[in-house]
Amino acid sequence: MGFLPDPRSSRTSTGVASLFLFCCLPIFLVQSSTAGVIDLKWTVEYMHWSPDCIESVVIGINGNFPGPTITATAGDLINIELTNHLHTEGVVIHWHGITQKGTPWADGTASISQCAINAGETFVYSFTVEKAGTFFYHGHYGMQRSAECTQTRQEVDLSGVPIRFIGEPQAILINGRGQYACSAAAHFDGKAVCSPKCKPEPLKVEPGKTYRIRLASTTALSSLNFMIQDHKLDVVEADGNYVERFSVDDLDIYSGESYSVLLRTKEDAKGNYWISIGVRGRDSDTPPALTILNYLPTEWEKHPNSAPPVHPKWNNYTHSKSFSNKIKALNAPKLEGYNYKPPPEKQNRRILLLNTQNTIKERIKWTINDISLTLPSTPYLGAIKYSLDKAFDQQSLPDRYSNPDYDIMVPPLNTAAISSSAVYNLPSDVTIDVVLQNANMLKDDHCEIHPWHLHGHDFWVLGYGEGKFIDAEHEGKFNLVDPPLRNTVVVYPYGWTALRFRTDNPGVWAFHCHIEPHLHMGMGVIFAEGIEEIKKMSINKKALVCGLTGEKFMDSYKE
Amino acid sequence: MGFLPDPRSSRTSTGVASLFLFCCLPIFLVQSSTAGVIDLKWTVEYMHWSPDCIESVVIGINGNFPGPTITATAGDLINIELTNHLHTEGVVIHWHGITQKGTPWADGTASISQCAINAGETFVYSFTVEKAGTFFYHGHYGMQRSAECTQTRQEVDLSGVPIRFIGEPQAILINGRGQYACSAAAHFDGKAVCSPKCKPEPLKVEPGKTYRIRLASTTALSSLNFMIQDHKLDVVEADGNYVERFSVDDLDIYSGESYSVLLRTKEDAKGNYWISIGVRGRDSDTPPALTILNYLPTEWEKHPNSAPPVHPKWNNYTHSKSFSNKIKALNAPKLEGYNYKPPPEKQNRRILLLNTQNTIKERIKWTINDISLTLPSTPYLGAIKYSLDKAFDQQSLPDRYSNPDYDIMVPPLNTAAISSSAVYNLPSDVTIDVVLQNANMLKDDHCEIHPWHLHGHDFWVLGYGEGKFIDAEHEGKFNLVDPPLRNTVVVYPYGWTALRFRTDNPGVWAFHCHIEPHLHMGMGVIFAEGIEEIKKMSINKKALVCGLTGEKFMDSYKE
Repeated sequence: MGFLPDPRSSRTSTGVASLFLFCCLPIFLVQSSTAGVIDLKWTVEYMHWSPDCIESVVIGINGNFPGPTITATAGDLINIELTNHLHTEGVVIHWHGITQKGTPWADGTASISQCAINAGETFVYSFTVEKAGTFFYHGHYGMQRSAECTQTRQEVDLSGVPIRFIGEPQAILINGRGQYACSAAAHFDGKAVCSPKCKPEPLKVEPGKTYRIRLASTTALSSLNFMIQDHKLDVVEADGNYVERFSVDDLDIYSGESYSVLLRTKEDAKGNYWISIGVRGRDSDTPPALTILNYLPTEWEKHPNSAPPVHPKWNNYTHSKSFSNKIKALNAPKLEGYNYKPPPEKQNRRILLLNTQNTIKERIKWTINDISLTLPSTPYLGAIKYSLDKAFDQQSLPDRYSNPDYDIMVPPLNTAAISSSAVYNLPSDVTIDVVLQNANMLKDDHCEIHPWHLHGHDFWVLGYGEGKFIDAEHEGKFNLVDPPLRNTVVVYPYGWTALRFRTDNPGVWAFHCHIEPHLHMGMGVIFAEGIEEIKKMSINKKALVCGLTGEKFMDSYKE
Repeated sequence: MGFLPDPRSSRTSTGVASLFLFCCLPIFLVQSSTAGVIDLKWTVEYMHWSPDCIESVVIGINGNFPGPTITATAGDLINIELTNHLHTEGVVIHWHGITQKGTPWADGTASISQCAINAGETFVYSFTVEKAGTFFYHGHYGMQRSAECTQTRQEVDLSGVPIRFIGEPQAILINGRGQYACSAAAHFDGKAVCSPKCKPEPLKVEPGKTYRIRLASTTALSSLNFMIQDHKLDVVEADGNYVERFSVDDLDIYSGESYSVLLRTKEDAKGNYWISIGVRGRDSDTPPALTILNYLPTEWEKHPNSAPPVHPKWNNYTHSKSFSNKIKALNAPKLEGYNYKPPPEKQNRRILLLNTQNTIKERIKWTINDISLTLPSTPYLGAIKYSLDKAFDQQSLPDRYSNPDYDIMVPPLNTAAISSSAVYNLPSDVTIDVVLQNANMLKDDHCEIHPWHLHGHDFWVLGYGEGKFIDAEHEGKFNLVDPPLRNTVVVYPYGWTALRFRTDNPGVWAFHCHIEPHLHMGMGVIFAEGIEEIKKMSINKKALVCGLTGEKFMDSYKE
């Protein structure tokens, strides 16, 4: 059974502005030997909706918010014919966690893997799913993942002089439903004053059974903590990869991550229990999202006997780190179809990425080794395929931050930061280490959590550490035995996170903080992997009818 | 001297939503024998602005709202290199009143003359201006002319089930400045509590002189009336065409129209006078926009001695019709460079367009002869150039409404209305009459003013009438001697308006109500003029890199 608490932050603290996440239910993939073809037709459009009981204009799919769930079998080919019915905006959808081997043009990242699909036009995403797991999809153009018409305001606010913070969310959504203007209790009491579109979806269970709960966080800003009152959760999957089972009372989940947990229901339950999702890592007054673990045959509207559970304090990083460190790859070599391999023992290249905030042309930007990512109008994939060097900046990017004595505990000095669309070129068939180095922000004593997501790959999480990463000191302590495979990993305040992957998937892949405002402000890098292979690959030209690739096609047409 | 009261409706009655018109100052063209080239670089972007004293996010050009004024000489070639810095939206700019002879791809109409310019991309508009006059430019994609992020909400509201009216504007802007949250008096008193961005711009004059005032209305919804307290206005130009001079106390101006008026200042003025712009044709509580006719050396902040002038009552159509009927072409055959010709005496084809409201698929639409215009994703101009019949509906459209006994005084019966992207095919070198027939809306006893704008042409306004147009009864009364040339003309409630033009400009031209919500709801038709000539014309391919034309270019590229 699948139940998806899909925690999304909603509604900024400004009151009039709403912050909804475009997208949606995940893709459930199960292991099977018979691969098939799944053909879907989707229409993307703005519509009136009331996800948190206040009506807004949100982007939906086929008239619904969140969009449809895809249930598929490992090996299936999925074809999604997507028609853009927005009025003046382009759109793309990213299939988060799908590696897109052989189909890098289907990754759904505007300016990177494809041109945005123009309003009124149709584009067919076509890709094979490699393995069972829990994945999800979302917009990946501008800040459309936070789509409501307020995304434009947020984009302008964040790019403004001076910058304006977009505000904490006013509600968190579970499966697209949350409460802002209307309390959960109002729903539970059967009062009809709330929109049915924000009515909580209870998780109905029977006593003495085991349930698999699939979780994914698509938040724009918030990090989350998931709890079920008076129940243990056994973590078994992370980002579509099995992990060695472990039991927790609560689970941190960062934007871009997914988990499966097993829930063993009580034999002797009397009544219902709270399911609660609270904010982590930010001192936010966003109330936890609530719904009900409903023990049948009890009515779901019956309130639990006690108050909702209390989440760990927002800045209890010890608790969070303890959770992160429990996640290990499943050691089950004999499990059919399971093929976990530990990482290569040596890397061929290590890229150390220091994130700081810097002021560039009067605007506050996030920078990585002093470079803030700006995306070009021609997709990188097409620019590289056709060797269009003018499509993006051609400088080479540094594998290290320039000052080895940089003090991560103090605000940056803002020396030579620039904006650039340049990329990291990664050759094929090598082992890459990336070490994320967190540091103090512009404000004294401020450093945030950043969940970084890699497109096109899972990676092994080799370890986390405090303070500055020192190669000689820390690489010897990497976990090379059973590091978990993930596509998203967190870097903690004033700390570092090390990961490793093999360049076995030619394409152009974004690696970025999954917090939407941070990416908008430049917190990401682009890996151009296997350039020679890309030039020889068959790329769907329909993904490239814009910018300089569009002009190249145009120029080839002779009347 | 040029002074441009640029009246734009702003801020809907919903309080949080703002309705700003994207675009801007007009193009002033003066007669001259030496033609030149004017090269401009413009960047379009969202920005924080406070046009009516409340801060909003508006679309500006080169960091300003309204955008820059272009001053050119008849015969000049204008090249505008337009870069779209919106985040996820396409953009186009229409050069309202410029006929684009030989450059139909530069008309700036998304889906009609070109593909929307993608976010991040640059497009060069290049066209020659034919004659002196007062013109203006504005967005022509979705409802971007009303751009703020609320345009999306307005688009969804108007397309919703049930429909939601967007509300009357809360303020009217003069040269991009109006007062909603801050009274004009607060500015005049020199109080610093209002944003400088909404500070009224006074018209500074000296006694005993004659000034030319250029007026253009770019409103989304409102019809306007312009007055200067205790001063006469001599009308001399309409839509870039000279008219026989006549004198009025106030002047109606509908969205899409422009005028020049001559103002003779008093010899003995003591102090300042009010300039006021009020709403016509709608029972709106929008207050008039005010600024000051400032007689130097009086300080402009000095209030006039009496209250602002009172505009004619909103529904005093007798007054409005009297004004319309005064407009005649200038009879000055010996004026150098002036070449007014009266219309051909006979038409080759008359198209009678009945506008009604109808419900199509549960949505309220405006229909023309029972057809509601929907725009295709491939621009018509490219589809016709390359004979791509699948790009738009190929049915032929009726030159008459189907029921000759249709009663225009009662709500429509909503029989067989449909949505369609079909066009009227007009051969070259013929004389076309169009008669606009107004009729009752869905609600009893309701019929609105509609200012219709034709792209690619000026037309002769042959006459206005009450009730139903009957060919045999009315065509004999057409003014064929000195009908004014216009590009926009109003049709009054329960009446008709007749116009005539020669098909001397191959291209695809929209003809539509200039009220932005009405066009969004389908109130327009498309004239495909000179199809055979279009197929042979040189069309800027860069205007066509989208939809089926984009695919055609793509398919021509062989690796």
